[in-house]
Amino acid sequence: MEQKIPYKIYLAENEIPTQWYNVRADMKVKPAPLINPATLKPLTEADLAPIFCNELNKQELDNDTRYFDIPKEIVDFYKMYRPSPLVRAYFLEEALGTPAHIYYKFEGNNTSGSHKLNSAIAQAYYAKKQGLKGVTTETGAGQWGTALSMACSYFGLDCQVYMVKCSYEQKPFRREVMRTYGAKITPSPSDTTNVGRKILAEFPGTTGSLGCAISEAVESALSQEGYRYVLGSVLNQVLLHQTIIGLETQAACKKYDIKPDIIIGCAGGGSNLGGLATPFIGEMLRGEAEYKVIAVEPASCPSFTRGKFAYDFCDTGMICPLAKMYTLGSQFIPSASHAGGLRFHGMSTVLSQLYHDGLFEARSVEQTEVFEAAVQFARVEGILPAPESSHAIRAAIDEALKCKETGEAKNIVFGLTGTGYFDLYAYQKFNDGTMGDYIPTDAEIAESLAKLPKVE
Amino acid sequence: MEQKIPYKIYLAENEIPTQWYNVRADMKVKPAPLINPATLKPLTEADLAPIFCNELNKQELDNDTRYFDIPKEIVDFYKMYRPSPLVRAYFLEEALGTPAHIYYKFEGNNTSGSHKLNSAIAQAYYAKKQGLKGVTTETGAGQWGTALSMACSYFGLDCQVYMVKCSYEQKPFRREVMRTYGAKITPSPSDTTNVGRKILAEFPGTTGSLGCAISEAVESALSQEGYRYVLGSVLNQVLLHQTIIGLETQAACKKYDIKPDIIIGCAGGGSNLGGLATPFIGEMLRGEAEYKVIAVEPASCPSFTRGKFAYDFCDTGMICPLAKMYTLGSQFIPSASHAGGLRFHGMSTVLSQLYHDGLFEARSVEQTEVFEAAVQFARVEGILPAPESSHAIRAAIDEALKCKETGEAKNIVFGLTGTGYFDLYAYQKFNDGTMGDYIPTDAEIAESLAKLPKVE
Repeated sequence: MEQKIPYKIYLAENEIPTQWYNVRADMKVKPAPLINPATLKPLTEADLAPIFCNELNKQELDNDTRYFDIPKEIVDFYKMYRPSPLVRAYFLEEALGTPAHIYYKFEGNNTSGSHKLNSAIAQAYYAKKQGLKGVTTETGAGQWGTALSMACSYFGLDCQVYMVKCSYEQKPFRREVMRTYGAKITPSPSDTTNVGRKILAEFPGTTGSLGCAISEAVESALSQEGYRYVLGSVLNQVLLHQTIIGLETQAACKKYDIKPDIIIGCAGGGSNLGGLATPFIGEMLRGEAEYKVIAVEPASCPSFTRGKFAYDFCDTGMICPLAKMYTLGSQFIPSASHAGGLRFHGMSTVLSQLYHDGLFEARSVEQTEVFEAAVQFARVEGILPAPESSHAIRAAIDEALKCKETGEAKNIVFGLTGTGYFDLYAYQKFNDGTMGDYIPTDAEIAESLAKLPKVE
Repeated sequence: MEQKIPYKIYLAENEIPTQWYNVRADMKVKPAPLINPATLKPLTEADLAPIFCNELNKQELDNDTRYFDIPKEIVDFYKMYRPSPLVRAYFLEEALGTPAHIYYKFEGNNTSGSHKLNSAIAQAYYAKKQGLKGVTTETGAGQWGTALSMACSYFGLDCQVYMVKCSYEQKPFRREVMRTYGAKITPSPSDTTNVGRKILAEFPGTTGSLGCAISEAVESALSQEGYRYVLGSVLNQVLLHQTIIGLETQAACKKYDIKPDIIIGCAGGGSNLGGLATPFIGEMLRGEAEYKVIAVEPASCPSFTRGKFAYDFCDTGMICPLAKMYTLGSQFIPSASHAGGLRFHGMSTVLSQLYHDGLFEARSVEQTEVFEAAVQFARVEGILPAPESSHAIRAAIDEALKCKETGEAKNIVFGLTGTGYFDLYAYQKFNDGTMGDYIPTDAEIAESLAKLPKVE
């Protein structure tokens, strides 16, 4: 007898997973290692030690340990905002008239407004444990910076955020949330670093870029005693921490005997998709189950669907390590008119390898159809979604409409990574009818890919 | 054996109360009736019918029915964002080093960002049921307008919001949330009403006021076929709907065997305090229990603590009915520098009578000490609170610190009505150290009270 499924499935507090899942342990073909651009040799823990925390470097390089215990201090913090609900989208199903059952894992019920807090608190914890004074990072749209500010405030760590100057000026409220949590925010490029001063001298009027902010944050960490650099996506460690999303989803599905058919996540650098999907992909790798997993990326920055699987720099400034990944080329600049995140030219190496091996599919969606889905969702489900998350909503609605045609009652699970409370300038453009779609030409992508470093 | 209390107590969906509680049924001295300023006679259902929905007028005037069934359609909508969690503030307790147990009922986990949605959906439901086309309202800070927009979108009602012009311009993001939910937003004063045109002719440069926006919204409802006016606080019906907060709190306390000693709510017009506290006050009126209930109001608008219990106009424009309440005088203008809501000159008639009869106490707090509490809370509990809610946080912290001195492990429950994501301009002022305190002089209050209408 089927148990009636409530609108919101909340696990009990003692059902929060106490281990993170490392999908690399189950991958037959492991992700290619990060390599040093100077020596072209794989990076070691010793290479990474000056940049990242020691414990995080262990996690970064460990392809064998299937489960990592979550330290008690982090589980305690998780209890502040987790377990997050797995919501049955009854209202959306009704509005669509679909026989599909739609579920979403909602990660936006915390002040950072997104799933980013799951890894921020872990990274802050290991920094504190190592006896560091503080961490540096960059932020673009501001979700990661906000999450890290909250995490550092909790552990009493200094938090220095290089915020892309145009965001610093256009998103003063994000900046104020970070300041309220005690973080120091510097608009980038700034005169506090060599790389910043150099860029300012060369381009006095620049409003900055994520690549430049990364370079400043890394330089700043290296030049201060007791500081390390932290990053909110792309890295293996970040995917590891984010698996709390997928593991909770599995627990909730198990509790209510729900068998997902389709699992959908938006994809920028991979932190959300990896967190939601890899526990399910692990079941596939172990031959325990089959799922249709869909990565949804913006048509303006289509690394999976139009990029190349190759070694490339992780940053525009070409100072970071090389990673083998689906990339549009580190010199690819996504349209500034694209709202929200998901603007990274590359992709997590883990997800890149899994995609290459056919474990999931990918599709790109255009901005205006994403916002159409966002508004439809907001009106019936009562949550104003982040633009990033709305890519997944678009795909979930499309899959549910396919079910309507075929009459199939599939179980669709998607990740609702966050809320759009700080993205209302984009909603305003959509409401005003002045939002456009921005799709790079084949020539643009080819030009960018021609600049890939020669590695193999 | 005491059951371990989790960080967040979520009731199950089938534990959501199915009735609202009407404290008037238990009051020995009933609240004085609203009276018509022209005739000085109590208002009847017939008098109210052109302005408000019929069913709501019944609720407004009914002093006898203890419980009202919540219609299934409203309970369904509640399931979208309710039950709201009763959170044990373990982190705050630890930071304060207090033996007190602090709990807060968190109403901010919905896109309107506050408890206002509890009444908005009820009022929209009755408007729909009456076959109306739409509703009009005013909004200042924007929480109520946002909540009503969401509710009207759900029931397919037209929603016309008169937004105080300075808020319209200074809070464009609130405006965009409402537009996203399909509401029509008009900056007030506007040229769409007689009263608006008159004010604009007289004061061309005015940035508007809540009083003016109320007048425009009422005129607009009266002049359109199939429209009624709705209000987000002060009214008996609003307090009735908001008791879902207190009833859920009681259910959660019962489930975990928690006996509150102190119950704290911020007070502007009374929607939150009435919603949280009247179910508990009802127990006191029936002689079943004793609680210390504390209303917390801003020192800049201290209607309970420095106002007079007298008949007064509910609006600055003096077109609305007269209500017997604690008031600073309808011509009292709270400092524009006060952040957030709680700026109403009067107070719910129900709460006014209960306060007059000694059922609870009141205190006023200054703005900067409120924001100090807000930031302390945000950093340890992970939620950026609304300025309104932070008044209650201030009092809760003060009570917990008293417990630290006395060593008493009291149970303190306060209402966290909402989040501050749209109040970051105020946080910025606090972070910058440029926020001040604004306390009216005795002469200012006396001057305003001298203008009270002569009724008794």
